[in-house]
Amino acid sequence: MENIQQYVEANKDRFLEELIELLKIPSISADSTKNEEVKKAGNYIKEQLLKSGADTAELIETKGHPIVYGEKMIDGNLPTILVYGHYDVQPPDPLDLWDSPPFEPVIKDGKIFARGACDDKGQMYMHIKAFELMMKNNSLPCNVKFMIEGEEEVGSDNLGDFVKENKEKLKSDVIIISDTSMIANDTPSITTGLRGLSYVEVEVIGPNRDLHSGTFGGAVPNPIQILCEMISKCKDDDNHITIPGFYDDVEVISDEERAEMAKAPFDEEAYKKDLQIGDVHGEKGYSSNERTSIRPTFELNGIWGGYIGEGAKTVLPSKANAKISMRLVPHQSSEKITELFTKHFMSLAPPSVKVKVTPHHGGEPAVTPTDFTAYQAAKKAMAESFGKEPIPVRAGGSIPIVALFEEVLGLKSVLMGFGLDSDDIHSPNEHYGIFNFLKGIETIPLFYKYYTEMSK
Amino acid sequence: MENIQQYVEANKDRFLEELIELLKIPSISADSTKNEEVKKAGNYIKEQLLKSGADTAELIETKGHPIVYGEKMIDGNLPTILVYGHYDVQPPDPLDLWDSPPFEPVIKDGKIFARGACDDKGQMYMHIKAFELMMKNNSLPCNVKFMIEGEEEVGSDNLGDFVKENKEKLKSDVIIISDTSMIANDTPSITTGLRGLSYVEVEVIGPNRDLHSGTFGGAVPNPIQILCEMISKCKDDDNHITIPGFYDDVEVISDEERAEMAKAPFDEEAYKKDLQIGDVHGEKGYSSNERTSIRPTFELNGIWGGYIGEGAKTVLPSKANAKISMRLVPHQSSEKITELFTKHFMSLAPPSVKVKVTPHHGGEPAVTPTDFTAYQAAKKAMAESFGKEPIPVRAGGSIPIVALFEEVLGLKSVLMGFGLDSDDIHSPNEHYGIFNFLKGIETIPLFYKYYTEMSK
Repeated sequence: MENIQQYVEANKDRFLEELIELLKIPSISADSTKNEEVKKAGNYIKEQLLKSGADTAELIETKGHPIVYGEKMIDGNLPTILVYGHYDVQPPDPLDLWDSPPFEPVIKDGKIFARGACDDKGQMYMHIKAFELMMKNNSLPCNVKFMIEGEEEVGSDNLGDFVKENKEKLKSDVIIISDTSMIANDTPSITTGLRGLSYVEVEVIGPNRDLHSGTFGGAVPNPIQILCEMISKCKDDDNHITIPGFYDDVEVISDEERAEMAKAPFDEEAYKKDLQIGDVHGEKGYSSNERTSIRPTFELNGIWGGYIGEGAKTVLPSKANAKISMRLVPHQSSEKITELFTKHFMSLAPPSVKVKVTPHHGGEPAVTPTDFTAYQAAKKAMAESFGKEPIPVRAGGSIPIVALFEEVLGLKSVLMGFGLDSDDIHSPNEHYGIFNFLKGIETIPLFYKYYTEMSK
Repeated sequence: MENIQQYVEANKDRFLEELIELLKIPSISADSTKNEEVKKAGNYIKEQLLKSGADTAELIETKGHPIVYGEKMIDGNLPTILVYGHYDVQPPDPLDLWDSPPFEPVIKDGKIFARGACDDKGQMYMHIKAFELMMKNNSLPCNVKFMIEGEEEVGSDNLGDFVKENKEKLKSDVIIISDTSMIANDTPSITTGLRGLSYVEVEVIGPNRDLHSGTFGGAVPNPIQILCEMISKCKDDDNHITIPGFYDDVEVISDEERAEMAKAPFDEEAYKKDLQIGDVHGEKGYSSNERTSIRPTFELNGIWGGYIGEGAKTVLPSKANAKISMRLVPHQSSEKITELFTKHFMSLAPPSVKVKVTPHHGGEPAVTPTDFTAYQAAKKAMAESFGKEPIPVRAGGSIPIVALFEEVLGLKSVLMGFGLDSDDIHSPNEHYGIFNFLKGIETIPLFYKYYTEMSK
């Protein structure tokens, strides 16, 4: 640990300079005019892997943006850790809400501000610098492979094929990912679960054209009214989801586990105050933490129909639409839930209207058992670097590729993130604490060490 | 009648040419870049009134667009008819759906196509040409006043003040308006009622900012979901409106009257086929005709919230909005209904959200009793010109100034329209049948004649 801290202390300025170079590259995967910039960021990662001591590193083309692959194999008998991360970033819009330009990194109040500072350039780069540290300190205890993609922010479209076609190349014992958050700098935590996702768009079609609401109102199906009624019928008064079969496969959490979860610090008054809501709002019988982690949800992400401009227009519109996403918990299947939803939603339609349901994308939930060796190693590493035991936390969000890795490669992932929920990822003024960046670089070698020891 | 038909036959080409000149002027009251064109149309009406035989005609400035006022007083002991109409038109958008330019009138299949052809330039101009006819035939049996405004399509904002300030000038016995439709060319009808209107915009506010639906979904109030639930609670399973007190003042229609109404021709299968709806949809216990005429409604005119672009975004939005209009029937008050709605809607909000209700505009319902002299005169006139007795019809739409005329001037209006619901007013390819235009010019002098006779 002392060696690690000394190395980080001696090299931290360079680490930050290198990260800043990476953050200057606008590798926005969603923006096709930035394809060359995305590639440039990939090349930068490849070069840094080689400089840090990788045996090989390459930019592998896909139908979309390239994947950076690199490795350092020291002994076939030792465990192999696969590092996953991404070098692409979200679009920076709305630009006018940024205090400094998104691709001109600025250090302020101990934080580095730039698009991708936390998600995921900053968190991913910690792994490369921790690798450098182990190489320079001659303390790399096992083999390591890096798979850093450039399409995470646009759905990892080509990663699935890459993984399926390169099972041998990617053969490892565990995957480590830093693309999640922890509770607070003085309350380290490890993500032990991610929710799955079923995302659908619905359309309710009434008359074949927009009508005058005075002449036709009252006798003709109003698609907005009917859409609202159908949506409201998807939940009961206790905010339970009413889709038949929806809860059938939901993982049962024991009272002991729930009691354990309830120990995680959560200040409901502060939460309400921060969001300026009159009260929390959710499924009866569960706490806010449970509602955002171990329970599935049904959320409206968008709705539109009729006249949405200024003033009044007496139109009875032809159709109304909504975007709905359901977060899923372990054992629920995205495909099955989409089917159950579709069947139920169609059944709610009165005979006067037509209804279309279009699935967008989905992903399966994932869990990392806390008795899993790699989890124990991560826990021990964080306990040592933070001086405090990390709390296991089920996250509300989804990283669909985690379930894919498990399905295709048979590998569990350790989700050891060092960001905070307040880092404004996907928002203006994204930032990452320098404390967090350096603490990550310190913690990762400890993980390698304990994981290798525990795997013996 | 013979004299009338001869005059119309001899002058119809000129009548059409004059209407075409008027239709060429893009008097779009909502478009401030067209202020001069609106004024030009007003001046054209003034000139035509004078040419047709008015003693005086003037363009009276308001805070908005001018009102054309003209009169022909022949004898203070004779009745006075006040003609109301408007020379402004709706914006023609979307332009690409027009088969010919909206301000380049085209005659095709016996119809004249142009913005305003029916609403209301064509219908209003019939009155000026009928007046000319009576002047030239020396058959004007009573006094006549014309009040033709230029702001009907933007809410008649300045007409109320004008009427209040000019009660003496406008002193009359009855108002006649041709700004409604009839059932069909072989089924003449007269509008005996208009619904009132209460139009509100609502906003449901959840968290103070857009959130990630994975991280916060399930624990935080989703304003779209809650808006949908609140809207759906405004109607019960029978599509009755659940706002307490909403129906308290609704005019009770006797079974006899309902039986009389039911005689009006209505082909429900054709109605469903035309609109391509699976079924009609409305308040239990009432027919489609009743639902759009003698019963109040609650209609969603617009809804929006969250992400409404392409693809998927997992946002839990800060707020959601809707535009809601309620059509009112006799004895209901727009102001009272807006209050009842607001109180009820606020009461439906869970403590987790904030709700805002903003009233837009309103208008009171109006009826013309069928035993009223002017109605009887209009009925007799149409029966003679069409060879068939007109049917009394309650219209679903609203013309708020009709209630205003009654309140301020103490005058009932006769709503003798010659347009058809299929004339595409407010839509691309607005048109007006030449048959209807000329039939109106024939019928109006008969109304003057019978109204004067019956008033003796």
